[in-house]
Amino acid sequence: MSDAALHHGAAPAAPDEPARLTPARARKLFRAGLRTPTAGYSAGYAQANLIALPRELAYDFLLFAQRNPKPCPVLDVAEPGEISASIFAGDLRTDLPAYRIYEHGRLVGETPDAEDDWRRDLVAFLIGCSFTFEAPLLEARIPVRHIEMGCNVAMYRTNRPCRPAGRLSGPLVVSMRPIPAERVADAVRITSRYPSVHGAPVHVGDPAALGIADLADPDFGDAAEVRPGEVPVFWACGVTPQAAVMASAPDFAIGHAPGHMAVTDARDAAYQVP
Amino acid sequence: MSDAALHHGAAPAAPDEPARLTPARARKLFRAGLRTPTAGYSAGYAQANLIALPRELAYDFLLFAQRNPKPCPVLDVAEPGEISASIFAGDLRTDLPAYRIYEHGRLVGETPDAEDDWRRDLVAFLIGCSFTFEAPLLEARIPVRHIEMGCNVAMYRTNRPCRPAGRLSGPLVVSMRPIPAERVADAVRITSRYPSVHGAPVHVGDPAALGIADLADPDFGDAAEVRPGEVPVFWACGVTPQAAVMASAPDFAIGHAPGHMAVTDARDAAYQVP
Repeated sequence: MSDAALHHGAAPAAPDEPARLTPARARKLFRAGLRTPTAGYSAGYAQANLIALPRELAYDFLLFAQRNPKPCPVLDVAEPGEISASIFAGDLRTDLPAYRIYEHGRLVGETPDAEDDWRRDLVAFLIGCSFTFEAPLLEARIPVRHIEMGCNVAMYRTNRPCRPAGRLSGPLVVSMRPIPAERVADAVRITSRYPSVHGAPVHVGDPAALGIADLADPDFGDAAEVRPGEVPVFWACGVTPQAAVMASAPDFAIGHAPGHMAVTDARDAAYQVP
Repeated sequence: MSDAALHHGAAPAAPDEPARLTPARARKLFRAGLRTPTAGYSAGYAQANLIALPRELAYDFLLFAQRNPKPCPVLDVAEPGEISASIFAGDLRTDLPAYRIYEHGRLVGETPDAEDDWRRDLVAFLIGCSFTFEAPLLEARIPVRHIEMGCNVAMYRTNRPCRPAGRLSGPLVVSMRPIPAERVADAVRITSRYPSVHGAPVHVGDPAALGIADLADPDFGDAAEVRPGEVPVFWACGVTPQAAVMASAPDFAIGHAPGHMAVTDARDAAYQVP
């Protein structure tokens, strides 16, 4: 795609090979208006969940993350009022494909550009995302349904409460991938190596045990068909901070639209343990 | 040791088999006045560094820890004003063998009991300690000199700055263990499995590269002889927060006396990754 195409009023088309885009290039497309889930983008680079909260809630959130490291592994924290971070050279207000705006815990809008909504007192947190370990899953020939289908990953609120911290509490959110039964052990082993991006699954096989009534009706993202011989596998999800915002009702917050992540400059490999 | 012995005015004697004490029993001895480095105590239970800071510095410290996870892996955070924590059922003011008190960054005293010094606005942080992986080292027949010698581990301020956070900055502190050259790889492999308690070494072999002029003159703890055929191996150390206090001069702080740790109720195994 030429630079000129980015300067049209219309949103740019989705690229043919999103995996091969550099993070800077991907962010430029999103800034220009491309609105798409980011699974499969910029292979080899970590993606991140965004939650931006008023400064006076920053300690509570950092403590919430410390107490709930599976869903909330903190990759980076911007300085108060800053709009980029050490692993994200772009503009956090504009360079994600879409944002969700919360007031008093209520989702009041979803927008491709949060520049007008951003407040100076916000502290932006970047939280690890399980998209980061999808490249290693694919390399091991473990299918990732939502990448195959070109849709968003399925995410669910569970009945598992997070450990509260200060004024923040809320349920664990999980992402689900249908995995062939004979590859579940491999998927566990591979994702275990990435504890900073949710690591090993929190649950394998039984949605009801997590309080998920119907896999076909995710709370965020798109449903993924679980085919015969496949098992639903659940990983902790970085949308959990937004569920905490909805449950705890701070006066204001901005998050990414689920599945529409911050494509960072950090390498996946940086989050791999031996 | 009988309970009666603990009620004498005199400090209790060191136990014969410190490795076999439960954490509660070890804490009781320390509360009664036993003043000793804790390496080798309560085998199988994690030990922790303590840093207690005024509430208004808590966010800066939690961010400092997030930015410097090798020296500052946060295991637990007490609620503001609380004197125990989820992994430490004892009294944080009395149940460590010794404490250091800081005013405006200056060490103003070392005491076996910090109850009179403790302030209500303090937030206590428990930080992972490399003593936690000494049991697995010993199990693998890798010698741990300071346990053999019954002295404190050697610790050094380095020339490596930590990433600052808010009002906190300071140098990396390391602990050193002399390891037989043919076992260095094993020591790396074993300690890598414990990322929450400093994990793999930050440096192997060259004290000068860390700005350490003389191994025989540690900044904290006792010197350990490096014998022929041994290599000095350096791990990030949880005294780093106290070095940050000395460098950044908050009005008040309480830390553990280096090597005189909080013996927690958490199992070592809880901090092991696959």
